[in-house]
Amino acid sequence: MNFPSKLIEGAVEELAKLPGVGRKTALRLALHLLKEESEETFQLAEALVKMRAEIKHCQQCHNISDTDICSICSNPLRDRSLLCVVSDIRDVIAIENTAQYKGLYHVLGGVISPIEGIGPSDLHIESLLERLPKSEVKEIVLAISPTMEGDTTGFYLTRKLRDANVRITTIARGVPVGGELEYTDEITLGRSIVERTNYGKV
Amino acid sequence: MNFPSKLIEGAVEELAKLPGVGRKTALRLALHLLKEESEETFQLAEALVKMRAEIKHCQQCHNISDTDICSICSNPLRDRSLLCVVSDIRDVIAIENTAQYKGLYHVLGGVISPIEGIGPSDLHIESLLERLPKSEVKEIVLAISPTMEGDTTGFYLTRKLRDANVRITTIARGVPVGGELEYTDEITLGRSIVERTNYGKV
Repeated sequence: MNFPSKLIEGAVEELAKLPGVGRKTALRLALHLLKEESEETFQLAEALVKMRAEIKHCQQCHNISDTDICSICSNPLRDRSLLCVVSDIRDVIAIENTAQYKGLYHVLGGVISPIEGIGPSDLHIESLLERLPKSEVKEIVLAISPTMEGDTTGFYLTRKLRDANVRITTIARGVPVGGELEYTDEITLGRSIVERTNYGKV
Repeated sequence: MNFPSKLIEGAVEELAKLPGVGRKTALRLALHLLKEESEETFQLAEALVKMRAEIKHCQQCHNISDTDICSICSNPLRDRSLLCVVSDIRDVIAIENTAQYKGLYHVLGGVISPIEGIGPSDLHIESLLERLPKSEVKEIVLAISPTMEGDTTGFYLTRKLRDANVRITTIARGVPVGGELEYTDEITLGRSIVERTNYGKV
């Protein structure tokens, strides 16, 4: 693609590095910014730079944070006996948005994936094991996506946590709310029957 | 959506102002930037700010440009007897990418749309009419999208250009290359028959 301006070409090339943004989308975004007030672009750029330069990772749970210890870890109202282990920051946000969980988190920063060269030492597993004895945690909730890599990570963690004297649970698998039985895959449907719960239970 | 950090919330809010970017996508982009080297974010921000602050519009054709007169208008190899009228900068880029057009351009900056409150005076029509007598233009190619608004704009222009002593043409309408007759709409197919060309003509 030829551009009439080196300036727009530079912006398009940078925007096209973002995931899911091709050169056509990048051009659309750049032209949008050119149509809007320049203040819009400056605010966007400032917010990105500020975020990248100033954001921290919580020293305890590795969640992103504005402070050394994140707002969840430092909240006295959270249940310190519950620890939810997730692979990614996005999972923390997703679970927080359900408003159903009041415990603490631990973000692994990925899952074990030999294909991508990610081993246990690349994840925040060591810090999880170090954190436990000093904590009041009685139950660890593994909330890792049920993929091959996720299950491997879960299996590795349960072995590592065998001697930790905590209950290990995992999020329920089953037919999604609003999902139709007919279109649910066999493994999920099978598990939802084996792990059936009392009708009244929410 | 609750965010664990005000910094990421700020970035997500700014990113979500971009067209086609919702809050979920914005979060994905922000988290991507956090995973990459901070240099990536700084380069993106700098490219956007630089583009917005320094880009100009060509004083002659209103295309975006790094200089007062754009690289197309100032190129001595372009055919100055041909002037292609388009509604948007994107159309210039699209036509340039075909490498089939060697004339000049005039960017209207939109189309006449009473619903959106865009009248002829909001477009670069006056500057087109002023530009013509001083130019060597012999043919004006109207390359405006064949929508209701586009056709209205084209009709308005042909009336305004009636006394300009230039040939007025428009881009060919017909079945797209690679398109199947069966799936072509009736108006396009009808026009492609009425305006049929010699078989050997490319």
